Amino acid sequence: MKFNAKMKDIKNYEAGKPIELVVREFGIEPKDIIKLASNENPYGCSSRVSEAVSKIVTKMSLYPDDSMMDLKSGISKRFEVKDENVIIGSGSDQVIEFLIHAKADENSKILMNSITFAMYEIYAKHVGAEILRTTSQSHDLDEFYEIYKKEKPAIIFICTPNNPTGDAIDSQKLFDFLSKIDSNTLVVVDGAYMEYAILKDAKKEVKPKELIEMFENVIYLGTFSKAYGLGGMRVGYGLARTDIIKELYKIRPPFNVTTLSLEAAKVALSDEEFVKNSIVANFSEMKRYEEFVNEQKIDIIDSYTNFVTLCLNPSQNSSQIAGLLLKKGMIVRDLSSYNMNAIRVTVGTKEQNTRFFELIQEIL
Amino acid sequence: MKFNAKMKDIKNYEAGKPIELVVREFGIEPKDIIKLASNENPYGCSSRVSEAVSKIVTKMSLYPDDSMMDLKSGISKRFEVKDENVIIGSGSDQVIEFLIHAKADENSKILMNSITFAMYEIYAKHVGAEILRTTSQSHDLDEFYEIYKKEKPAIIFICTPNNPTGDAIDSQKLFDFLSKIDSNTLVVVDGAYMEYAILKDAKKEVKPKELIEMFENVIYLGTFSKAYGLGGMRVGYGLARTDIIKELYKIRPPFNVTTLSLEAAKVALSDEEFVKNSIVANFSEMKRYEEFVNEQKIDIIDSYTNFVTLCLNPSQNSSQIAGLLLKKGMIVRDLSSYNMNAIRVTVGTKEQNTRFFELIQEIL
Repeated sequence: MKFNAKMKDIKNYEAGKPIELVVREFGIEPKDIIKLASNENPYGCSSRVSEAVSKIVTKMSLYPDDSMMDLKSGISKRFEVKDENVIIGSGSDQVIEFLIHAKADENSKILMNSITFAMYEIYAKHVGAEILRTTSQSHDLDEFYEIYKKEKPAIIFICTPNNPTGDAIDSQKLFDFLSKIDSNTLVVVDGAYMEYAILKDAKKEVKPKELIEMFENVIYLGTFSKAYGLGGMRVGYGLARTDIIKELYKIRPPFNVTTLSLEAAKVALSDEEFVKNSIVANFSEMKRYEEFVNEQKIDIIDSYTNFVTLCLNPSQNSSQIAGLLLKKGMIVRDLSSYNMNAIRVTVGTKEQNTRFFELIQEIL
Repeated sequence: MKFNAKMKDIKNYEAGKPIELVVREFGIEPKDIIKLASNENPYGCSSRVSEAVSKIVTKMSLYPDDSMMDLKSGISKRFEVKDENVIIGSGSDQVIEFLIHAKADENSKILMNSITFAMYEIYAKHVGAEILRTTSQSHDLDEFYEIYKKEKPAIIFICTPNNPTGDAIDSQKLFDFLSKIDSNTLVVVDGAYMEYAILKDAKKEVKPKELIEMFENVIYLGTFSKAYGLGGMRVGYGLARTDIIKELYKIRPPFNVTTLSLEAAKVALSDEEFVKNSIVANFSEMKRYEEFVNEQKIDIIDSYTNFVTLCLNPSQNSSQIAGLLLKKGMIVRDLSSYNMNAIRVTVGTKEQNTRFFELIQEIL
């Protein structure tokens, strides 16, 4: 059977075995496997959330409230915007999918950082758009502007803090950049890890309310998967002016967030204490990483997130090292597919991090 | 901001208030509202499922197993196919989205029944494809074939049992039709309500295993939203030969089904007793609808699903009648948007149906 021509450029997905199963093949018990690969909140989610979800498990037969009224109003209150400025996706990933399909096609160019969240490129390929990248590892907004002026991309992705490197942009610099962009270019400010950045350094805080007030062409993305501890529930959101939100709504499939996920996210918003405690614990543990790499003379990138990126020296090979850790039951992210000789490690609980330090010392 | 030209053809989604809230505005207590509008399983879901999900609520922070290994193998065993023949979506809706994006574009034609599941058209518009429809209310496969021969559509949708009419095709007739279709046309056999049809009349059973063995160009769709009682959890699947599944996988976003949804669907497959009991109860209650409409001289379409479609006479107006029912706290589906003067009513529990009979008698 013939499929669309653009399908040839999308690489075949290989449905792998769960990595936990791979580790088990090395004879490691499930309880001894530590996964520091997906930047999940190591403290789980708020107990208020798990209690609330437990209470409504008998409602699994009922379709979700497709207006998402309660959650939408929780998000709009949290960010001091209006309900009409909010669209909710199955993870912020899905909002990325919506906006690429609404704005870009095979004649479009999409600009992003040299190293950044992989889904931007994947969804861009779905519509056959041309991908433009900067050359520098951290977001260089001057370079972004140079490429923008020359190429006039339909969409620019700014990821701050950036995944998988962890660095963040000063909000003032970002606003200066945004003010130079033509209103017909959609700029996406992906703040999936923003809650972490704000606590570490107020200068990194990008307020969606200000973005919306100042710019007609900017959308802010946020997620419940990281600081809010709901990675398994797939809830993210986009915040923008209503004309953008209305267009994205045209592409949103009905019932894109489950009944239990809506409840979980809504209740998660009511427990900011849990979120704050998670972030405080995160940076306290991150200090241990900083001390450790200092002792071990490993380079890391200053991180505004819940992960650290260890840049290895040329005599070390990130794939090999991730493989050796895997054999010992420690799952981390090898960044060789990003053309980096580095591994990305989620900052876990105290015990998990201690174990990481032990294992990486054995290996290096 | 300018968006893609095709966006103009996609109508603006109006995020409405939850209908329960609308009813409450009529002064009706939530407990007195009966919703027979979304063909949910009125018996909920298996208690095994709600127990299993309750046990893992603390895992909401963990990303879903993206290989979906356990659920995939449950589905492949259930249908006697291989894991490689299975793709799992956020509802079977999402599999429809995948296949339209993989196979169709603005130069394609997509053929479907005059009256059928609304999402086929909605996703077809997302890629700008031309929509072709038959003229007859129930699937007339001769008419499908005539249009197919003339127009050579990229995709043909066959919905059996059909939503929102409830009628089903004899599988033998379907297989005869399929054998005449060129292998480059993708035929989608949507069996969202198939579990119901099978119990009512074995001649309606379409076995995915046989479809896959006989045809290289056919995909079967199934869902956990109806008989399995998991409408709120968004889990559906497509079954086809591996070359089709591989293409669809290219479009699947990672983590498209939540951690709790994967568990729910997996456990649901282990309780076929619950499913069977739900279906037996459904047809026992449907008999009461048949008797009722017989007495009241209302036409219904012979239904192989968990809903009945009441065709009103020209002196009655379906929108008006659905509106009057709404004011009394009874939510049903007005089919005027399908150009039918009819209402679709989910066959509910005994009490719910009795209440429907009372209310519709008051109104008609």
